[in-house]
Amino acid sequence: MAGRVTIKDVAEAAAVSVTTVSHILNEVAGKRISPETRRRVVDTAKRLGYAPNDLARGLRLQRSNTIGFVSDEIATTPFAGRIILGAQEAAAARGLLLLMLNTGGDPELERKEIEVLLQRQVDGVLYAAMSHRVVRVPDGLGAVPTVLLDCRSDDLAVSSVVPDEEQGGYTATRAVLDHGHRRVGLVNNAEPIPATGGRLAGYRRALAEAGVAFDPGLVVTDLCDTAGGYRAAREILRRDPRPTALFCFNDRMAMGAYRAAAELGLAIPTDLSVIGFDNQELICEGVFPALTTVALPHYEMGARAVELLLGKVSPAAHELLRCPLVTRASVAPPPRL
Amino acid sequence: MAGRVTIKDVAEAAAVSVTTVSHILNEVAGKRISPETRRRVVDTAKRLGYAPNDLARGLRLQRSNTIGFVSDEIATTPFAGRIILGAQEAAAARGLLLLMLNTGGDPELERKEIEVLLQRQVDGVLYAAMSHRVVRVPDGLGAVPTVLLDCRSDDLAVSSVVPDEEQGGYTATRAVLDHGHRRVGLVNNAEPIPATGGRLAGYRRALAEAGVAFDPGLVVTDLCDTAGGYRAAREILRRDPRPTALFCFNDRMAMGAYRAAAELGLAIPTDLSVIGFDNQELICEGVFPALTTVALPHYEMGARAVELLLGKVSPAAHELLRCPLVTRASVAPPPRL
Repeated sequence: MAGRVTIKDVAEAAAVSVTTVSHILNEVAGKRISPETRRRVVDTAKRLGYAPNDLARGLRLQRSNTIGFVSDEIATTPFAGRIILGAQEAAAARGLLLLMLNTGGDPELERKEIEVLLQRQVDGVLYAAMSHRVVRVPDGLGAVPTVLLDCRSDDLAVSSVVPDEEQGGYTATRAVLDHGHRRVGLVNNAEPIPATGGRLAGYRRALAEAGVAFDPGLVVTDLCDTAGGYRAAREILRRDPRPTALFCFNDRMAMGAYRAAAELGLAIPTDLSVIGFDNQELICEGVFPALTTVALPHYEMGARAVELLLGKVSPAAHELLRCPLVTRASVAPPPRL
Repeated sequence: MAGRVTIKDVAEAAAVSVTTVSHILNEVAGKRISPETRRRVVDTAKRLGYAPNDLARGLRLQRSNTIGFVSDEIATTPFAGRIILGAQEAAAARGLLLLMLNTGGDPELERKEIEVLLQRQVDGVLYAAMSHRVVRVPDGLGAVPTVLLDCRSDDLAVSSVVPDEEQGGYTATRAVLDHGHRRVGLVNNAEPIPATGGRLAGYRRALAEAGVAFDPGLVVTDLCDTAGGYRAAREILRRDPRPTALFCFNDRMAMGAYRAAAELGLAIPTDLSVIGFDNQELICEGVFPALTTVALPHYEMGARAVELLLGKVSPAAHELLRCPLVTRASVAPPPRL
């Protein structure tokens, strides 16, 4: 936050007291301030790019020191709990507590919960989805600074933090291409969510950069669970010549690909390299050999959303966070034919 | 709650108004009530078994309609999220919301969080652990009705709900004994937590009931992850004669046992039956064949803890909830020798 324009800078430039700037910008009623002074202060603030920090103002006025965390089912499912951890630790570092409410995806419960949060004067709300999707921002949230976490909205006035799915797909595909693979299958999700298209786009960009022609026959989609991954991998591994590497939409599908490989007598990684997505540790460290994957930046998204909430929220920011490679033991050079 | 004795029943039986009963039982100061009336109302309440509902009283006085849910890391790890779901749905069914706070196991953060909950006048607190353990009840919680969830305390004045580990171990062992197995290995956790001893005791009781002598050579302990399960299973499967079934402390250890079996060329379940514990669906439905296991009653514990919080909390209740068998595909009769 170094270099940020403060209320003191505005006061000095406009040759008035900080109190006067505060009264004008916070629209405190009943203060006798001339229209000229008012205009000069507003213009100066605009010229210097002074952005009143809505949340800090909330803190001073209301002393709530809490942030609401409203999510569908992050807390109740095993997939994205580190989002909560990241948000909580970033909040705690600033002396703020996180009050979590879980809607289970029920709009009526969600409406009630948001009402309760507003009654309790939370300083801001993180509205978080279990996995990257497009949402409608609930009406009640108009009244309070809000950041969308692992979701985004068509309403671009609300800031958001989501994973960079395209970069993640690119990173996964590059990881196998860099080992020398040229026939790389994609076991993709059939559901049209942002991750599906984003990861496919990243796969195609990495292939193009490496001068490998895109072969639609090497892309098979199915349900994004173990059984779906098993079926899709079996289908791709029937191609002739057989791919030497599979990029799987998520770690569950990769677990299914492991089973398909075992049934075909293919050893991982000597006969077939497999890379997943999500970094679901129960799976990645449980399968043998341990699964190389690309991590969803859950912790980082949670922490970054708190920073956005506490920082300048106007104009809105729309951030894509990097999905890093997590190298374990399932990717190796292709077998020599 | 049908048949529950109400304050109206007490008033009628004692021939006084509901207001008088309320003043007496709530010990409202400054009311002129004769000692005779007071004694009659107290005796009548006792005789009828009227239990003042501490929480309902809190609701009327403070109109908070929220329950605090303080946990170490349930929300941030993939293991026990359904505890939150059970508590939330039971609370919602009664028009109450759950405010969750996650301590990450940090006592200082926990102290602050409990202070915030009390400032916001929650009607009660569920104090929940990610896995069954013995805790010290934080001092701040003395001021508000509290139920311990998936943990218990040496302070027996605080109600608790935990899984019945002994019954769970018994159920798992019975499941393989009932298929005809007589040499059943136990891949146990090395950590001395309640689950370790409880599941071992259940294993021994099931063996004894079936007339199978306990063989300490068939019990091996290690870290409770996949690698630990792999090592322990390899060691047990070296015994001669080889066990035909393994009961594993948790699903992660069972996943390691699958790998040990594969390396030894043993097919599951035809050559070796395997049963886990936890019902961690990412694992149970991801491995092949799908893992038969015993479920931790996470959802039920969460729901039951809310019921205890809303019900009669004095004297304290200490409940063990049943861990049910979840049959999938990894248990079959032993191979014919």
